[in-house]
Amino acid sequence: MTKIEEVKVIEIKKSIFADNNKDADALRGELKDRGVFLLNLMSSPGSGKTTTLIRTINLLKDRLRIAVMEADIDSDVDAVKIKEGTGVESIQLHTGGMCHLDAEMTRQGLDNLAPGAADLVILENVGNLVCPAEFDTGAVKNAMILSVPEGHDKPLKYPLMFSVCDLVLINKIDVMPYFDFDLDKCREYVHMRNPKASVIPICARTGEGVEAFAQWLLQEVEHWKN
Amino acid sequence: MTKIEEVKVIEIKKSIFADNNKDADALRGELKDRGVFLLNLMSSPGSGKTTTLIRTINLLKDRLRIAVMEADIDSDVDAVKIKEGTGVESIQLHTGGMCHLDAEMTRQGLDNLAPGAADLVILENVGNLVCPAEFDTGAVKNAMILSVPEGHDKPLKYPLMFSVCDLVLINKIDVMPYFDFDLDKCREYVHMRNPKASVIPICARTGEGVEAFAQWLLQEVEHWKN
Repeated sequence: MTKIEEVKVIEIKKSIFADNNKDADALRGELKDRGVFLLNLMSSPGSGKTTTLIRTINLLKDRLRIAVMEADIDSDVDAVKIKEGTGVESIQLHTGGMCHLDAEMTRQGLDNLAPGAADLVILENVGNLVCPAEFDTGAVKNAMILSVPEGHDKPLKYPLMFSVCDLVLINKIDVMPYFDFDLDKCREYVHMRNPKASVIPICARTGEGVEAFAQWLLQEVEHWKN
Repeated sequence: MTKIEEVKVIEIKKSIFADNNKDADALRGELKDRGVFLLNLMSSPGSGKTTTLIRTINLLKDRLRIAVMEADIDSDVDAVKIKEGTGVESIQLHTGGMCHLDAEMTRQGLDNLAPGAADLVILENVGNLVCPAEFDTGAVKNAMILSVPEGHDKPLKYPLMFSVCDLVLINKIDVMPYFDFDLDKCREYVHMRNPKASVIPICARTGEGVEAFAQWLLQEVEHWKN
């Protein structure tokens, strides 16, 4: 692991576009033309997004060119962690108190990455199960992490988040014995919101299941580029 | 435990007030006149707000008249759980997708409680560390729950939430051995954001530490009524 002192920090400006859905579609079109796959990764605070990304990127970085955009209200701890833990390009997006990113804000991040240097860009969205679900970032796919300590009932309480996600990673499965978490019930609730969603149980700390997430990403990127 | 089939569900309307801070102060004034203490309880999804409330209310319900307002995007599972687990008045506030409550929205909830029947009203805010921190609900005190699995670095990443809270409960301390959570560091980060904040470690599942939270509430309610 390399000790990183500084990463690029972008202060994101509020969007001026009235129609975010239209703008998000336009951004997806541009990404398609440039052969770039953008993944929007969402979750609650503390569910393990950054640790999951470090594990996954280390599995994939010899096969894909990867860059990461870390969105946060404040601090640059996540972007630094990614750069230290993987060596891939990692920038921090400051949302200035805003609880989500929309397509135009995502574009501001993309414009600050080295041009043409990544096949896969991962946006780690603000830790929040409400607002990020309401704004299409222009990503090709949406994924979210639900961690075991949060409870299997979350798809009942945050319906929109689960209905917009193509993939749900269930993280921290190593602590399942200490929590009242029912994986079958969780799958059932996820599919109640989105019958097509993939569900992959993982443990980012030990690496269990992360290979399956890496495979999912590889397939999706290949599909997008062809 | 009584099986509860139905609770009152209030569909909250968007506020029309331009100056929420002024409105929140006005609401606090009204609460003072009526001798009602309103606690605004915030946290991430799945940090244990509802379980903590059930434990705490059962310790206090013979000494205080208590009512609970459960805010959620959707579902009424929390209000039902509170009513089943404690027997106190419990209503569900639906925010219709909104990620927070402001003072006017809180007032809509209060207006739907039985008049004059509670000394202590607890508002369980939407599970979110970003937006609820930005809106004064008119509560007398703000408290939040940070659970061990979320990590001790959260005050660094969600500064506003920690700076507006008078009390931080650290929940799920029973699983501390399985997580990389440093309680001293967490206290230090909390006090970096708000030097006056009280920090109480608890385990809502086993009841450990909940008596200390109940004592804090008793003192605050007494202070407010005198």
